[in-house]
Amino acid sequence: MKATAFDEWAGRQLADVEAALCAWVPADAPAALGLAMRYGVLDGGKRLRPLLVLAGAEAVGGERGAALRAACAVELIHAYSLVHDDMPCMDNDVLRRGKPTVHVQYGQAQAMLAGDAMQALAFEVLTPEAELIAPALQARLCGLLARAAGHAGMAGGQAIDLASVGRPLDEQSLRDMHHRKTGALLQASVLMGAACGRTSDDEWAALARYGAALGLAFQVIDDILDVTQASETLGKTAGKDVDANKPTYVTVMGLDAALRHAGELRDRAQAALAEARLPHADWLAQLADKVVERDS
Amino acid sequence: MKATAFDEWAGRQLADVEAALCAWVPADAPAALGLAMRYGVLDGGKRLRPLLVLAGAEAVGGERGAALRAACAVELIHAYSLVHDDMPCMDNDVLRRGKPTVHVQYGQAQAMLAGDAMQALAFEVLTPEAELIAPALQARLCGLLARAAGHAGMAGGQAIDLASVGRPLDEQSLRDMHHRKTGALLQASVLMGAACGRTSDDEWAALARYGAALGLAFQVIDDILDVTQASETLGKTAGKDVDANKPTYVTVMGLDAALRHAGELRDRAQAALAEARLPHADWLAQLADKVVERDS
Repeated sequence: MKATAFDEWAGRQLADVEAALCAWVPADAPAALGLAMRYGVLDGGKRLRPLLVLAGAEAVGGERGAALRAACAVELIHAYSLVHDDMPCMDNDVLRRGKPTVHVQYGQAQAMLAGDAMQALAFEVLTPEAELIAPALQARLCGLLARAAGHAGMAGGQAIDLASVGRPLDEQSLRDMHHRKTGALLQASVLMGAACGRTSDDEWAALARYGAALGLAFQVIDDILDVTQASETLGKTAGKDVDANKPTYVTVMGLDAALRHAGELRDRAQAALAEARLPHADWLAQLADKVVERDS
Repeated sequence: MKATAFDEWAGRQLADVEAALCAWVPADAPAALGLAMRYGVLDGGKRLRPLLVLAGAEAVGGERGAALRAACAVELIHAYSLVHDDMPCMDNDVLRRGKPTVHVQYGQAQAMLAGDAMQALAFEVLTPEAELIAPALQARLCGLLARAAGHAGMAGGQAIDLASVGRPLDEQSLRDMHHRKTGALLQASVLMGAACGRTSDDEWAALARYGAALGLAFQVIDDILDVTQASETLGKTAGKDVDANKPTYVTVMGLDAALRHAGELRDRAQAALAEARLPHADWLAQLADKVVERDS
């Protein structure tokens, strides 16, 4: 199958992201900490969040250097959350991105420290010398990322997730959990990209709606793939939500309704994007499709 | 005993820090996450780092609002590191600041998430609306804090600490470990305070030397107290370094030489401070004495 323009664009972005992460995640951090950090973030994953940052930046003519740092920072936060999430006291998972998880490879203490250092590194990457990113933009990016990662975003969503094991959640509570747990960081990715350029308040609000809808669509599909795909395809343990007796869109809505819902969310994302009327929003539009059409 | 001017100053600072942390660490974060965060940071600890931030700011006529945020951010990083450090996969400690540790009280998963969310919150606190702190200062503070917390600072030092159990370290390696593990954040505290005002390059360099010497002095005294004090006085488990077969200044130098060394480091901190010739450096000078004279 011939590579599409999107594939070519995404391939170029991911090569830049990988090279930047390779340069910024230190191999020489003491006592193998750097190796554990690199193991946790390099060479794996779909890199959806960096693509959203870079597509968001292109949509508004954003500064490339700042957007690349933002893309890496978001991926560092995502990767650290996986490292901690996989640990025995959380999901106790041994397989991630087709490899043994960080704590299996380096031990629990090193995995916890590597995750902690990856979170700090995200903010280091966003605060280079003033010549590289204007300080006001550095502050803006740090603020967006911190709020998406913290108690009101990802960490808060994981706390709800922990508390929900074995308890029935209605669709509203499930949506709230996922909006925080995965949605907040996906939405922040789009907005951090947009912050690298100029947007009107209306454009910003429309991009926020696009990001929120895409974030939920991503999670609905994740829940569907957890029951329909094998571990080899996913690169992580399949069926673990069901095994853990966790509420998912599939358990709450059923498989068919969940599939329909994912399509509706994709449409909602596309509608928001159309309202933003940005000149270069093609990659964002295609990303919303890819999120729903993916099989892993 | 009559309260000294320093005691009165410190009491006022700590009341402000406690009130600010109380306001900023959210009680209503989902699924008890906020309660675990508050348990980990409120109402306990010596608050040395916030005092260093606020004394550093006063020394250079720094902006009070920014300094108070910086003080709370540094304490959040310190407190999160204790929460993670106490977990079973690290030091496995059950007592901290005279109370059961966070994972004993809330479970390991919640303790890990609370620590993660506290780190993010530190950067949220540093990035309020632009009217509250100038964005360029926000960026500067985020950059200083991230580097002190990450692989080159605190997390890196903890990785060396982990790897050093049961292995002899020479004094140079011990100093390197502690400069990262505790020194970097103590030094950053002084410098974040100073960043809230204006300093010449020479003043900045002298404050950096003051912070480095004070940071090492703090750790030497910590090692001494670990063998000379009871758990009740320390509010944490005494003798645990020896029990864990960890190298300390006492095991490497002996008790008498460690005491002399702490005095030398205090003198070095005072000399650096004198070189900075700052008009309002009294509290910094007294803090260097307190660090060495403390008994808990």
